Amino acid sequence: MPIIVQKYGGSSVGDVERIKNVAQRVKATRDKGNQLVVVVSARAGVTNDLIARARAVCDQPSERELDQLLSIGEQESIALMAMALHGIGVGAVSFTGAQAGIFTDAAHTKARIKTIDAHAIAKDLNAGRVVIVAGFQGIDEDGQTTTLGRGGSDLTAIALAAALKAGVCEIYTDVDGVYTADPRVVKSARKLDEISYDEMLELASSGSKVMQSRSVEFAKKYNVVFEVRSSFNHNPGTIVKEEVTYMEKVVVRGVAVDKDQAKVVVSNIADKPGSAAKVFRSLADANIIVDMIVQNVGRHGVANLTFTVPKGDTRKAVKALEPVLKEIGGGEVALHEQIAKLSVVGVGMKTHSGVAATLFQALAGVGINIDLISTSEIKISVVISLDRADEAARVAHAAFDLGAD
Amino acid sequence: MPIIVQKYGGSSVGDVERIKNVAQRVKATRDKGNQLVVVVSARAGVTNDLIARARAVCDQPSERELDQLLSIGEQESIALMAMALHGIGVGAVSFTGAQAGIFTDAAHTKARIKTIDAHAIAKDLNAGRVVIVAGFQGIDEDGQTTTLGRGGSDLTAIALAAALKAGVCEIYTDVDGVYTADPRVVKSARKLDEISYDEMLELASSGSKVMQSRSVEFAKKYNVVFEVRSSFNHNPGTIVKEEVTYMEKVVVRGVAVDKDQAKVVVSNIADKPGSAAKVFRSLADANIIVDMIVQNVGRHGVANLTFTVPKGDTRKAVKALEPVLKEIGGGEVALHEQIAKLSVVGVGMKTHSGVAATLFQALAGVGINIDLISTSEIKISVVISLDRADEAARVAHAAFDLGAD
Repeated sequence: MPIIVQKYGGSSVGDVERIKNVAQRVKATRDKGNQLVVVVSARAGVTNDLIARARAVCDQPSERELDQLLSIGEQESIALMAMALHGIGVGAVSFTGAQAGIFTDAAHTKARIKTIDAHAIAKDLNAGRVVIVAGFQGIDEDGQTTTLGRGGSDLTAIALAAALKAGVCEIYTDVDGVYTADPRVVKSARKLDEISYDEMLELASSGSKVMQSRSVEFAKKYNVVFEVRSSFNHNPGTIVKEEVTYMEKVVVRGVAVDKDQAKVVVSNIADKPGSAAKVFRSLADANIIVDMIVQNVGRHGVANLTFTVPKGDTRKAVKALEPVLKEIGGGEVALHEQIAKLSVVGVGMKTHSGVAATLFQALAGVGINIDLISTSEIKISVVISLDRADEAARVAHAAFDLGAD
Repeated sequence: MPIIVQKYGGSSVGDVERIKNVAQRVKATRDKGNQLVVVVSARAGVTNDLIARARAVCDQPSERELDQLLSIGEQESIALMAMALHGIGVGAVSFTGAQAGIFTDAAHTKARIKTIDAHAIAKDLNAGRVVIVAGFQGIDEDGQTTTLGRGGSDLTAIALAAALKAGVCEIYTDVDGVYTADPRVVKSARKLDEISYDEMLELASSGSKVMQSRSVEFAKKYNVVFEVRSSFNHNPGTIVKEEVTYMEKVVVRGVAVDKDQAKVVVSNIADKPGSAAKVFRSLADANIIVDMIVQNVGRHGVANLTFTVPKGDTRKAVKALEPVLKEIGGGEVALHEQIAKLSVVGVGMKTHSGVAATLFQALAGVGINIDLISTSEIKISVVISLDRADEAARVAHAAFDLGAD
């Protein structure tokens, strides 16, 4: 019997009515003759409530205790989901991460899955029960509760699909799938039927909030085909897989805007070997993720380093840079927070020249200035002014004809 | 180093400020050079909220899933308590029932503790950490989460005290200890410094709400001396143990009133062998706890059976009796809900005659009619009218001179 893994996010299990709706969907899938594993998140808001309570008793809660605390959100969801299924006559059993055999390393709040022992799940599936698994959580070698970090429930679903060799993995969320652009910004944005792992990864790292990169990387590594779709309707979603049909025809798959970046300019530092290394080492040591990097060497043997960091990390970045600038002799730091990153993504770019030219020309046509540029094999990103970001997305979307069927 | 087990109930950890207060108490105890295990309940109200949510998704939630759900209440408390201790510089680690090695049978929602593997707790105690354990919960052989039923957190504390051979076990609650009578009803009620297990058991089964019988039975079996005291002040509480100092001098230890009983009269049933057995078998099969039982055989070969059941079970009792009465031929059922049970308890009764006489005389003196009477070695209980129960408690308390120092 084919095994299907379904994952329902926090908004899909946000209240009693929604839990009952999901139970009906699960029953419909089961009634078609499938074995079914359902991964659920904590209901929307619970995790933030728990974090607020933790901070109320302690300024810096330990990560081990945070995991002990946060894991209860999903535990509530699984029990209620199993009960809702019982209520409509469907045999079901709930498993915490530990009970489901999801073993992780001991890195609390950001644990990595090491192995999955799916025997207990398989036993209940074979007994005809729907198995409900708590997303986002696992257990380490010492029996400690761990959590997988942001996007952890998607990861649980994809890892279980790999371990169980499931035929289908469905990620239910509050959007219909992956779009050519954010439909709230670009009216003509179109839902994609399919997208490749690599494109999905580039979109994720470019500010598209559908899924975290990590889960997509895991799916790519274990070749888990999955579908992103809405739990609020029955529309087909977007299938994410290695090879996408008619891939050659498509140059650009989508446009993404990331408004959560800030630009840092370190100017007038000595142009000596090792200066840049010291700057980025200090940022890495402070756990700051640096995205786009540009270096200009000016006259008089001084250089300017420009890069982007998440907006929430700007103060931390400035603090981390102070001792380094003293050490390497001089240099000033300037922050620019009113920026956005626009990216166009598509595997077809590899074999098509002219994508950059089309993008730059489109932006120039409406007078949008490009500040920084970075490229990968299947992505071009530009930094532009924050107040023109939405307009830029519409212009780029039109320039690559993404709205057409 | 002496090991102390402390248990804090739901009202003691009811909000962030109370959790912080408990953390200060724990720190003070630890700073005196003790190894400390702290058992906590779910904060007041959480368990009822979860049950309400369960009933909203399913009329009759499965007990296995209820345990999965309800155990999160204590898991929240342990994590927050550990964090609160970290916040004031005390090393602490939280354990769920499973992590603490509390193994139970598989009887969900009313599991019994089978064994405790205290190695993990001992390791952390020896490393100088305060160990916070979730009360009320355990794990069965198959790794399923179980809960211990009402009063389960007290049981966890007493069982851990036994397993760890703790020198002291303190049950913190919202009252100062065990009183000679309910101080809200009897103004002259006095807190007892000591009470024997047997007296405590009789008081518990007589409506005194300080602790469930089950935990006291466990303490008696394993000879765990414990103290019941308040978490809201520093007054000494009541010590519960086998032998109580000056026990001979005390005839009656306390007075308890149970207003949660109803009287059921089954009249005009055939006075044949086996009739009463059938009646009580049917009630037992319906899980109804029957307390006082009186049978009168009248004229004409018919008998009347009178007994008390918890008020919440009256409808269930009537339903359970219907088929039996048909089977044994006739009989009518009458319910009397406006009753109360008054009990006087004391190990000294064994060697003193006249306790019953004193009680009956005191009640008669104020015109309170006695309906049913039952006695054990150390207890006399009478059923009286509900509206005179408080008055009866005051009269009995005075008759045995319980208010004197």
